[in-house]
Parts: sequence; C-alpha cells; structure tokens
Amino acid sequence: MRNIAFLGPAATFTDIAVSDAFPRDHRIPCVTIPECMDYVLEGKADLAVVPIENALEGTVNMTIDHLFHEADLTIVGELTAPIQQHLLVHPDNAHRWKEAERVLSHPHAIAQCHKFLNRQFYRVPSQQMTSTAAAAKYVSEHPEECIAAIANSLSAAEYGLFTAQTDIHDYTFNHTRFLILSKTHEELALDLPKMGGKTTIVVTLPTDRPGTLHQALATFAWRNLNLAKIESRPLKTGLGNYFFIIDVAQRIDDVLVPGAFAEMEALGCNVQVLGSYYGYEVGQTAEKA
Amino acid sequence: MRNIAFLGPAATFTDIAVSDAFPRDHRIPCVTIPECMDYVLEGKADLAVVPIENALEGTVNMTIDHLFHEADLTIVGELTAPIQQHLLVHPDNAHRWKEAERVLSHPHAIAQCHKFLNRQFYRVPSQQMTSTAAAAKYVSEHPEECIAAIANSLSAAEYGLFTAQTDIHDYTFNHTRFLILSKTHEELALDLPKMGGKTTIVVTLPTDRPGTLHQALATFAWRNLNLAKIESRPLKTGLGNYFFIIDVAQRIDDVLVPGAFAEMEALGCNVQVLGSYYGYEVGQTAEKA
Repeated sequence: MRNIAFLGPAATFTDIAVSDAFPRDHRIPCVTIPECMDYVLEGKADLAVVPIENALEGTVNMTIDHLFHEADLTIVGELTAPIQQHLLVHPDNAHRWKEAERVLSHPHAIAQCHKFLNRQFYRVPSQQMTSTAAAAKYVSEHPEECIAAIANSLSAAEYGLFTAQTDIHDYTFNHTRFLILSKTHEELALDLPKMGGKTTIVVTLPTDRPGTLHQALATFAWRNLNLAKIESRPLKTGLGNYFFIIDVAQRIDDVLVPGAFAEMEALGCNVQVLGSYYGYEVGQTAEKA
Repeated sequence: MRNIAFLGPAATFTDIAVSDAFPRDHRIPCVTIPECMDYVLEGKADLAVVPIENALEGTVNMTIDHLFHEADLTIVGELTAPIQQHLLVHPDNAHRWKEAERVLSHPHAIAQCHKFLNRQFYRVPSQQMTSTAAAAKYVSEHPEECIAAIANSLSAAEYGLFTAQTDIHDYTFNHTRFLILSKTHEELALDLPKMGGKTTIVVTLPTDRPGTLHQALATFAWRNLNLAKIESRPLKTGLGNYFFIIDVAQRIDDVLVPGAFAEMEALGCNVQVLGSYYGYEVGQTAEKA
C-alpha cells in the first residue's frame, strides 16, 4: 500500500481523482500544493497528486513554479477529471432549497456556475470558501441557516447533503488535469482508461536576441513533433525574464525527441525533462456513484 | 480633468502608479479588474489602469482573460512600478513592533517578504487580507492589538502608520506592470520617464497540426522583430485549446509589423491587435515621499 499525498481537504475534485486512480492506497490530504510535494521529498508519501490545469481557469501557477524553482520531482503520470458541480443543501432544508439566502463555494466554482446562479439565484449573495468541500462542510454544520453549497457528488456523500440540482456548471466540457509526482522515475501503471503519452520539459532560452523561441520550436516542427502546450512563467530574476514549460504530445522515443532536446541545447537553451508519462481518465465512476 | 478607474482600494500599488501618472485627474477606485474595464466601457471613466504582470507572480490572468473574452478596449500605455514593501504598525505600538503577534497583508506581499518574516518573525502567524492597503487599514483601526501590516509607503501615509522597517521584500528587482485601457485609440502622452514601444496582439492558431506556433513565430523571427513576451491562456472551449498573447518589442511601423500580421493571417491564424503604445516608469517619486 502506497501513501498518496494530495491537495485536500477530503472530498475535493483532487480527492475524486485520487480515489479513482489509487483505490487501494492510503490517501493523505495536504493543505497546500508545496506541502504535497514536500511529503514526497521527505519520504512521508510515495506519490503526490496536485492540480496542474483547468480548462476554464488555466494553469495552476503554484504547481509549475514550485516544480521548477523548488521541488526536484518527476512527473510519472497525469489524471484528467470532468468537473461536475451540484447544488447541495442540508437535508433539513431540502424542501426550501430555492429560498437559499447565500450560496457558498470556491471562487472558481462560483464562476463556473455563473449562468445558473444568475437564473435561479438572482441577487442572492455568494460567499467565497477555500474549497468546494469546505463549503459543503459548512452547510452540513449549519442546518439552521437556509444556505446552499456548490460542490461535487463526493462532498454530498461525505457530508450527508441533499443534492437539490445536478450539473449546474455552465460548460459541459470543463475538465481539470492533475500531475502524479514521484522521487523516482519508476513507470506507473494504473487500472484506468489510458490517454496519450506526453513529455514535459522546462526550457530557458539563451539570450534576448530575436527569434530564439522560434529557433527552439523549429527543432520540434521539422520533426513533426506536436506540442500539446507551451506556456511562459517568470524566472523571478526581473520583469521580462521567463522560462517555458512545454508539453510534447508523445513519450520520449529513441531518436526524435532526444534529437530535438540535443539540438535545443546546442543552440544554447537549457532543457530540463520533468517527466515522460501517460495520461489517464478518472472521475467517471465517482461522479456516477 | 479625466476620470481614471483603477483597481482599488486607495493606497494600493496601483494607486501609487495612477497618482504618479495622472496627478491632476480624478481617481476612481474599483473593487475588481472587470469593474475597472466596465467603467470605461460604460463611459463612467475615460481610462482604466489595471495590473497585468508582476515579476515574481507572473501574469494577472483576470486582466488578459477579460480583455480577450469580454471587454473591447485598447491598450494605450503601460506603467512599470517598483514594488517596495515596508513593515507598518500603529503609532501606539511603535516601541514594541518586534513583539507583533500577527503580520497582515495580501498573500503575494507575504510571499515577497518570506525571508524577512522567517528571520524577524519566526513562527509568528501571518494573516491574509484582500490587499496590502486593507491590511494597513485594519492595523490603523486596531491600536489595542499588537499587530503589523506589510504595505507600501502610500498606505503608511494614508492610514497614519509608523514605518518600523523599510524595504523588507526579498528581491530588489520586483516590479509590476500596469496597462492603461481606453475605448479610443487616441495617443497618450505622459510626463514620465519613457520606456520602449510595444505592440500587444492575441493570436489563435488555425488547427492542431504540428508546427503552427513555430510557423507563426517565423513571421517575426525572419524580420528580426523581438518578442518581449509570449503566453498561452485557455480559449475556454476545452482542455488543450489556447490563445496566445504576444508582446512585440516595438510599436507598429509601416512595413515590418503589418507584414508579419498579414502573413500570420494568410497562414490561417486569427490576429487581434490589443494596442500599440509606449511604456512609462512610475512610482519613484511616490516611494521617496
């Protein structure tokens, strides 16, 4: 049995992903993303699972920055989970959920249900909580208040709440990606629907002469290597200095990917491989439950 | 006299930048970045000033996303301000600032002073506030509590606080960039030290075939047009779909920049010019005061 550190508290979307991917392992909820990584670095957990990107909100900068600047860990896998938000109330208030006087949730979840809230709870104030699970917990502990939480189905089960409305999120395509991090390069095999392979690298460019990014990308382009993503983040050495995080849409092979990396280094780039791994789909079962 | 909407409250770093750039105009503090832009769109303000990037924290996604998805505004200028944090206490507690039982500030400011806090206030809890100015305001209203705020010199003056320690930020190079937004394309001339010209565009790529970003960047590279910045943000149509925000390190000329844009469009890219403008340095005077 492995120890899996993840961004808590219990019953968040990260918890859904972790429960689905590691059903027989021990889950350790952590308070922050750096804490998840520290658990692995200090040997208190075998793997860490942290969010890296949401289809609406974009990249989770804390994850990229901490991986680049602080934590020497390898990406050994990726989980992609659908984000399905529900409106939850205390069972005592099931009959009068439409009269809720406040709607509690994480700011991202409130934003994701903007149209629903505008239609069903026009002018009802929303209250920001640190997570969707924290909102559900608060609602479960305050039956005397006629309030509602926006959270997932695991939170409904965990805190014994009544699901007044399902799937209240505005966009049906919303997903979140999570990285699985390890101290070793050991291959990970999960009993889940497999998506494509990926290689994630961070690149710093040689100088500020024009065209260096274009030169670096040329090493991928002429080999027909597709980039799933490219993003810049501050090097923290002054405005205008960046590193790039690049997802190559395949795992490292024998010839093409190493060839591209070698050429980039010969051009003066610094290339650091964060991992070469498979993606998996999670969250289907947990959401149906 | 113009009306300038800016991200409030009063005495934030944005306020320092706005006061310095528009000393004779009327400043309107707004609660959120979208609200600043809405003020201009609705004709309640002539210009909006909002943060776009910090050297440590990176891009302010809300600004980019709202400009791309919602607000039809033009960037007419850019302000760059140094970020200098000080430790402030109520004058009643000036003699015992080292005994502060809590340090209040915006989470970014707390992070920026990590080394100082670790050295001077080891194990003293920090408390997150919505802005550095809000932290200063709270400290000014609670002389009975032995607490400190991390905030700038304008907050110290505004709320009558004692500056116990100056320049407690870890990195001396930390700056924030602000955009000046307008409904018109009218040229802006400010009485401030001028930096270089810039052109900001957003680009969506034609398809997901390999090498499209490389192709697009080629139109700049072979013309020796330097890119100050390139960043991807979600299109909000599903994971893996992005638009790119690109800063070209000069203003639009007669031949080269329009030529690059035309070629990108011919290659199937969608190119939208957000503005072609000058940058200015601010905050020197205000910080010395």
